[in-house]
Parts: sequence; structure tokens; C-alpha cells
Amino acid sequence: MKLGVLGTGVVGNAIAGKLVQLGHDVKMGSRAAGNPKAQEWVKGAGAKASEGTFQDAAAFGEVLFNCTSGMGSLDALKQAGEKNLSGKVLVDISNPLDFSKGMPPTLFVSNDDSLGERIQRAFPSLKVVKTLNTVNCELMVNPQRLKAGDHDMFICGNDADAKTRVGSILREWFGWKHLTDLGDITQSRGTEAYLLLWIRLYGAMQSPEFNVKLVR
Amino acid sequence: MKLGVLGTGVVGNAIAGKLVQLGHDVKMGSRAAGNPKAQEWVKGAGAKASEGTFQDAAAFGEVLFNCTSGMGSLDALKQAGEKNLSGKVLVDISNPLDFSKGMPPTLFVSNDDSLGERIQRAFPSLKVVKTLNTVNCELMVNPQRLKAGDHDMFICGNDADAKTRVGSILREWFGWKHLTDLGDITQSRGTEAYLLLWIRLYGAMQSPEFNVKLVR
Repeated sequence: MKLGVLGTGVVGNAIAGKLVQLGHDVKMGSRAAGNPKAQEWVKGAGAKASEGTFQDAAAFGEVLFNCTSGMGSLDALKQAGEKNLSGKVLVDISNPLDFSKGMPPTLFVSNDDSLGERIQRAFPSLKVVKTLNTVNCELMVNPQRLKAGDHDMFICGNDADAKTRVGSILREWFGWKHLTDLGDITQSRGTEAYLLLWIRLYGAMQSPEFNVKLVR
Repeated sequence: MKLGVLGTGVVGNAIAGKLVQLGHDVKMGSRAAGNPKAQEWVKGAGAKASEGTFQDAAAFGEVLFNCTSGMGSLDALKQAGEKNLSGKVLVDISNPLDFSKGMPPTLFVSNDDSLGERIQRAFPSLKVVKTLNTVNCELMVNPQRLKAGDHDMFICGNDADAKTRVGSILREWFGWKHLTDLGDITQSRGTEAYLLLWIRLYGAMQSPEFNVKLVR
């Protein structure tokens, strides 16, 4: 399948790398074509990897992955262009982290709104599915790194078919065993707010390699 | 030991009930002495149970438990009176839930501040230890109800000795096996923000009887 990955950071690298490993054609997008980090990734990833602008990656992908920083997500999607996004599924992995006021970061949108919702409102024809934003990028695509994958991932979005499709990607491509569908895109308020606990757990455990398992 | 429980709701009942079962002398406090819910609790709990004002309960207890609703916590503590709080350990179980804008609730303080911090700032000589606010009241005092207690509780506060003392209460009295010390009281921002996920998990699972286990 042709897939578009928006963002050239550690999350973009982890997602795009995994997708190429799985045999897909992947275009990594950034502000301008020829981004050195994107070029380096293409060099390492082989013939199925390519890079270009956000617009190029969005036009290329049948399914898109938002791996940009939260601060830059809406702008990146604007650059990608409404006509390249229309009707497509966007796996939204971004978090609204604001590092401008020092550490630990705060959230620039939270509580009664979320970045997932802002993206959905800005691009009504895009099928935004929020997921993977609650774990470190290594775990996103390799959940079995911890306890044979016996821990939980959350998913939410307005479009049921899009959630089913992303659920299959998470299970069949990435190896997630336990998915909880929280409901519509407003449920992003929950998983994004969890980051405020996640960063503190990271501090307490001195490692980002952890997740939570729902015990019931 | 003499213990003071502030609040007569389900959390106050669960905590006060468990403490009496453990053989302690417990005074439940509310806005006015003779609160019908407090009187009913005393009737059921026996000779070691008593009730009175917030001031009475705070003066009585060597260790205090804040089981009031988040909206009412600062006011309840003001009524309890600085001299009855000074130097004491307060186990702060409250969450800053705001139900006034409909369901699901939002938080009236979050992100760059927390209710735990507000309480600590308002009463500098009180040793505020935030904990137990991330689970349903039945689980607070009976964690073994789920998977023999194999799930996690978080604790934070500025005073190391107070945290050690509360840690012993959680382990030895209530049966918690896994405690993670997140650091100072500002870490309340993390555990209180988690409520925004917790209420959504409650919705998805149709039961408040769950918790998270840290997987690493």
C-alpha cells in the first residue's frame, strides 16, 4: 500500500521505518523537499522509501500518519492541502505538548478541547483517528518489546470504518493485542491529557519504555 | 490511632469504614455536625466511629483524609482551621472535577497547576500527600479486588516523611502492593489530569472497577 508519513522526527522515523519493513511504499513529508533528516531516512530505508513535501506525502498516501510535533500539526496539514487529505484516514499520533515554558511540558490545548478535535474541525472531510500517542515511538510499532505486548492502546475517532481500518493496522501490522475504542474524537481529551501523567512516569522510571495495562 | 476523615460522600464512607474496620478511632467531618449521612455512617460503623464538623474531625485526627469533592476542598479545609491542620499529614484524595458544564466533567484546575498544589499553597504547614485519586473508592481501600492487587498507585508530595507514612498506610492498612513516588506535590498535575482519561475508560468499560498496571 502507498502510505504517507508527515514528520521527520523520531516518531516519523519509527512509523515510516516499520511501514517500509512491512513492504509498503512510504513517502515521508516535511516542510520542504530535500529535508536532510528525510533524505537520511530514505537512504537507510531502501527502494520503497521516498521523501518530499507535506503535500507530496499526503497526495501519495492512501492512509496518512501525523507524526509532526503537536505545535506544528495544523500548519503541516494546511501545507499538505485539503484536496490531498479529503476522504483519507489520518492516524493522528500528535500530542499538544508545549515545551516553551520549560520542563516538564504543559499542553497547549486540553481539558475542554484537544488537538485531535482541532485537526478534525480544521479538516472535516479527513477521517481523524487518534491513537499511539500514549507510548514512546519504539513501542508504537513494537508493542511486543514489553511483556509480549500484554498492555493497552486506546483509539478514538468519529468514523467507524476508519477506526476499524486503523485497528487492523495496529493489530496486524504493528502487533497490538489490546485496543480500547473510547468513542468519538472528543475522547482525545483523555489520551492527550494522559501525557501529563506519562511525562511524570517517565521521570519516575527513568525510561520511556513503559505502558499501562488495564486491569479489570 | 485517631484519624479524621473530611467528607461524607462515597469516598469518605469507603475510607472511614475501612479505617474503623482496622480498629482505629475515626471522626467523620462535614460542614455542620449532625449531618444525616455522617450520622448514618456512625450508626453502622459502631463505637469507634464519630462525627462532627470539619473542625472537629481535623482537631481529632493525627492523620487526615481529604475525601471532599474537589470543588469544596479548599473551603472545607478553611473551615477545618489552620491550627487544626498545622504540621499534620493530609492524604489528599480529591480531584478537581467540574460537573457544572455537563458530562463528561472537565477539570477546574489542570495543566500548569493542580488542586493538590492549591491545597498545599493555601496551608503551607500541612503535609499534603496526593494519592488514591486515580481509582474508584472501592478499590482505594481494597486493591486486591482486582487481580490480587497487581496494579499501580501513585503518590506525590513535598514532605518525604509524610510520603513514607502514607506509603505505609497504603501498603499495610489498605493492601497496595505497587506504589510509584512521582515526586513533589506539583506531580498532582499528572494524576489529576489522568482523570480525563479515567472517566473515558469508565465509559468504555461500563464499570469503575478498573485500574492501570505499569508495564515496563
